[in-house]
Amino acid sequence: MSNYPIITLTTDFGASSPYVAAMKGVILSINSQVQLVDITHAIPPQKIRLAAQVLADTTSFYPPDTIHVAVVDPGVGTSRAIVYAEIADQRYVCPNNGLLDRLADRHQPTKMIRVSEPKYFRTPVAPTFHGRDIMAPVAAHLSLGLEPEKLGPRQAELVKLEWRGAKRMANRIQGEVVAVDSFGNLVTNITREMLADVPTDETVAIRCDDHETRSIFQTYGDQPPMTLIALIGSNDQLEIAIVDDSAKIMLGVGVGAPVEVSW
Amino acid sequence: MSNYPIITLTTDFGASSPYVAAMKGVILSINSQVQLVDITHAIPPQKIRLAAQVLADTTSFYPPDTIHVAVVDPGVGTSRAIVYAEIADQRYVCPNNGLLDRLADRHQPTKMIRVSEPKYFRTPVAPTFHGRDIMAPVAAHLSLGLEPEKLGPRQAELVKLEWRGAKRMANRIQGEVVAVDSFGNLVTNITREMLADVPTDETVAIRCDDHETRSIFQTYGDQPPMTLIALIGSNDQLEIAIVDDSAKIMLGVGVGAPVEVSW
Amino acid sequence: MSNYPIITLTTDFGASSPYVAAMKGVILSINSQVQLVDITHAIPPQKIRLAAQVLADTTSFYPPDTIHVAVVDPGVGTSRAIVYAEIADQRYVCPNNGLLDRLADRHQPTKMIRVSEPKYFRTPVAPTFHGRDIMAPVAAHLSLGLEPEKLGPRQAELVKLEWRGAKRMANRIQGEVVAVDSFGNLVTNITREMLADVPTDETVAIRCDDHETRSIFQTYGDQPPMTLIALIGSNDQLEIAIVDDSAKIMLGVGVGAPVEVSW
Repeated sequence: MSNYPIITLTTDFGASSPYVAAMKGVILSINSQVQLVDITHAIPPQKIRLAAQVLADTTSFYPPDTIHVAVVDPGVGTSRAIVYAEIADQRYVCPNNGLLDRLADRHQPTKMIRVSEPKYFRTPVAPTFHGRDIMAPVAAHLSLGLEPEKLGPRQAELVKLEWRGAKRMANRIQGEVVAVDSFGNLVTNITREMLADVPTDETVAIRCDDHETRSIFQTYGDQPPMTLIALIGSNDQLEIAIVDDSAKIMLGVGVGAPVEVSW
Repeated sequence: MSNYPIITLTTDFGASSPYVAAMKGVILSINSQVQLVDITHAIPPQKIRLAAQVLADTTSFYPPDTIHVAVVDPGVGTSRAIVYAEIADQRYVCPNNGLLDRLADRHQPTKMIRVSEPKYFRTPVAPTFHGRDIMAPVAAHLSLGLEPEKLGPRQAELVKLEWRGAKRMANRIQGEVVAVDSFGNLVTNITREMLADVPTDETVAIRCDDHETRSIFQTYGDQPPMTLIALIGSNDQLEIAIVDDSAKIMLGVGVGAPVEVSW
Repeated sequence: MSNYPIITLTTDFGASSPYVAAMKGVILSINSQVQLVDITHAIPPQKIRLAAQVLADTTSFYPPDTIHVAVVDPGVGTSRAIVYAEIADQRYVCPNNGLLDRLADRHQPTKMIRVSEPKYFRTPVAPTFHGRDIMAPVAAHLSLGLEPEKLGPRQAELVKLEWRGAKRMANRIQGEVVAVDSFGNLVTNITREMLADVPTDETVAIRCDDHETRSIFQTYGDQPPMTLIALIGSNDQLEIAIVDDSAKIMLGVGVGAPVEVSW
């Protein structure tokens, strides 16, 4: 469409929210030729942790220099900062409240700026909607080539979140379900990397709540319908699935359910 | 993307409706380079009043000359007219059924045309889907530079809706909840303008149903979690909110609940 | 936006799914200037038949050479093929599992290729997400002008689905409800074409479950609110509707309900 970098939006405003439409209007009023992509607007209200995971799972697929705007912002209008950050080859504009923590865990941010120069904001700024009045116009100006340094002073650090990782023991890995996808597949916090250590000459048991299966398959269709299986999903995390059905419904478990791999 | 004006879509077809996909295809078949933006497709079926409010709350943020197509159309195929209108610096194509009334309340329309020239329609026109067969192709032709006067004769007036406004009394303002956002915040019909008249040397009480709070804050984070607060939202309307939670759920009230500001 | 063909997406990932955002990122990383359009992501999980109907109902409205990517793929990672096909003036990339059957019923495909050349895939290919790792990059390369023949050998045929059509008898047509739209209108498998045969000098009765109406109207507004009516919808299929209300809710029927036209 243009040689401008793409702008993506991630919010907890709900799909089809007029708040999202307002943000898009503000961006397009500054750069009418920029391409907008919705990552998701279905983050549950104020769930920073989930949004941080979604940003980490999706934004790395975008072209270098894409500008990702994320608005999950329970502290809007208070003293929490708004940051611009460059992580790997992507760019982010969001409240400094942990939204970038999952990304920063994987790659050291290479630039962090505290967004504070009102010249690039809408006026007046509504104290309850910095997404529309600060983050949207700032992203639009960046897409037109604004140097990030113009946005404000260096930001020393990004807010951290606590993540509960899976635990490796002598003959087992203990983790939990951290997400459920639209098919009812249970995504765990046990990574492909952790599983690489499992001795290959041992029988592996995968237990989720009080359901158990053996061996890890390649894909859903490897077993007959209604079979409980484990596999490594497309984000390199262990998944528990029921072939052609919803593991969430069939097993009656969800986020937080314990998962154990033992051998 | 191009120097064509943007086209936005607002409908009651439901998110992800194939009807929306058909409209987009029709527009892109006439102007494949135009940029499309979804305002919302989640207007509840036939709720003209709500759609009129969403159009008023969002479309003014768009670049001048943006073409906004709105299809909430219970009278589709009957004698109700389809109009093209210019209001402030925006352009609209929609049934003449009140959809533009909230906008026209704020700014006098500067041009109104009755869309009736079949040359710019798809053929045959399905009597049940003028969004696809009349409004979409007309908007696409306008985006290519068609003069609105070619669409038909002057339209004398726009259909009006009745709006129930808040009432100012000697020492109080009586209004009601008119919308609930995705966070459960209660948006009222009491405007910033009405509140500007309240004497500043008086204590203000804000009552919603049988819940009461005092003083009007700047933003949600100004008070501790779970506090009932009042504030002026990003659309300049008084809101009732529970910090970090849903006022709708916690107070058990919704659209239509009485709200009173007294001093 | 550009002179590249448009790419559309149809999936069962759910509206606002991060899986969709990942696919879009992959496409834009290969062709950052292509225009993306969502047909729908609300296909119920694994419902190939419904997705085939949506593709047939919507994609013909798009400009010639539009590339439609459809990912409803219960067999992902198994031996099922991925196909590229040209049908009428549109292009499709999807699993060969029946998704194109409704389209191929109407127009003979003019080119069918088995997508198998890994040069155009992401590496490594996740066995559970060919939408992201095969179909998205292949579509992006096609949008840049890749000749389809480079994708693999000729594909002999497309997988067929069984469709239950309406039956024409001496003095009646027996069909059923095959879809319910967002307004609660009941869409049947009785087509305009079949109804063209009905003798015009006879009184027609339309029965849905145990509800009956007479004569076929042009549009919803032709009768007073709450009237049960039949009409031919915008996709040329007989519909049963309640004026200004939901036939689905008022009649208590849904997909599969018997519909009979008799004279």
